Amino acid sequence: MSDPIRTLVHQLSRLPGIGERTATRLVHHLLRQDRALMHALAHSLVDVAERVHECPRCCLLCATEGPCAVCADLRRDDTLLCVVASIQDQAAIEATGEMRGRYHVLHGTLSPLDGVGPEEIRVQQLLARLGSDDRAVTEVILATPPSVDGEATALYLSRQLAPLGLKVSRIASGVPVGGDLQLADRLTLSRALSLRRVL
Amino acid sequence: MSDPIRTLVHQLSRLPGIGERTATRLVHHLLRQDRALMHALAHSLVDVAERVHECPRCCLLCATEGPCAVCADLRRDDTLLCVVASIQDQAAIEATGEMRGRYHVLHGTLSPLDGVGPEEIRVQQLLARLGSDDRAVTEVILATPPSVDGEATALYLSRQLAPLGLKVSRIASGVPVGGDLQLADRLTLSRALSLRRVL
Repeated sequence: MSDPIRTLVHQLSRLPGIGERTATRLVHHLLRQDRALMHALAHSLVDVAERVHECPRCCLLCATEGPCAVCADLRRDDTLLCVVASIQDQAAIEATGEMRGRYHVLHGTLSPLDGVGPEEIRVQQLLARLGSDDRAVTEVILATPPSVDGEATALYLSRQLAPLGLKVSRIASGVPVGGDLQLADRLTLSRALSLRRVL
Repeated sequence: MSDPIRTLVHQLSRLPGIGERTATRLVHHLLRQDRALMHALAHSLVDVAERVHECPRCCLLCATEGPCAVCADLRRDDTLLCVVASIQDQAAIEATGEMRGRYHVLHGTLSPLDGVGPEEIRVQQLLARLGSDDRAVTEVILATPPSVDGEATALYLSRQLAPLGLKVSRIASGVPVGGDLQLADRLTLSRALSLRRVL
């Protein structure tokens, strides 16, 4: 194998879930295809590297100048703000079609053991926007994951948001809809019991 | 998600073994890293696309002008030529350290049902080099895989090479060294029996 191939294999094998064997297979697959495909892939990579940035308002990733498509959408409910940990979580919530308000992406959850404090995620940006552009917000929905770090982040944010006098809510956590009680893990099931609601 | 990200996810998800979910994960991983890494990956792709070509003599992939490193190596045994189906197979054989001769890469095996005939793989190049540059060859080792297509390719090549009056050999096939007879599949075991050698 020659040098450029080895370099590419080495770079690909540093990606998560891709080992050296998979990387080799990918490169040989690409070499069997039209070379234009490799150029197109390289072009897309450069395009993402150069154009994608965080929206200055909600921290979603976007390629447009100024605010992202969600922030620029005038038909959205300005009173509702949904705080999520990641872009993927935002996409999942948006896909439900139930959230017609704005978003704020933290780009992580608090994780003191990993050295992730409030400064490492977009907490300051959240407090800043609630104090300036987004004074219309009346409810902040904390949609960080129901994991240890996600719960800690939600608790931290609820305390930070308390002085603003807003309604702060947390997404429900319990047995998944259509799920089998026998298959639910013990923590989820006990959470479902303790968070039971009166009918 | 914005357009450049979607484009990149779409392109990556066309690679073998990478679905849309994995592609999304890879792109978000890249976005969390230094942007220089994406530029480096793009550069490597372009480098491979533009510089890698088949060696005019043995059809190995190389990035150098003219013959590849193996063909240019004067210490190699000019009398021995090992025919392999793929670059990966060549790398595996080279890694044994047992093959000190030259190679010829077919870039495939005959597969009439998939429309792969002798013109689709590098058979003509093999016959041409044996008639010109590589007259010193006395033995051709057919190291195509012991699969249906690989065996058919070896049989076809042995017939094509017969008029040249060379020694034509086939790599041994049987129970792997260190392997368990109970775990060998029936075909491999019956092959090992029929190809038994007298001690």
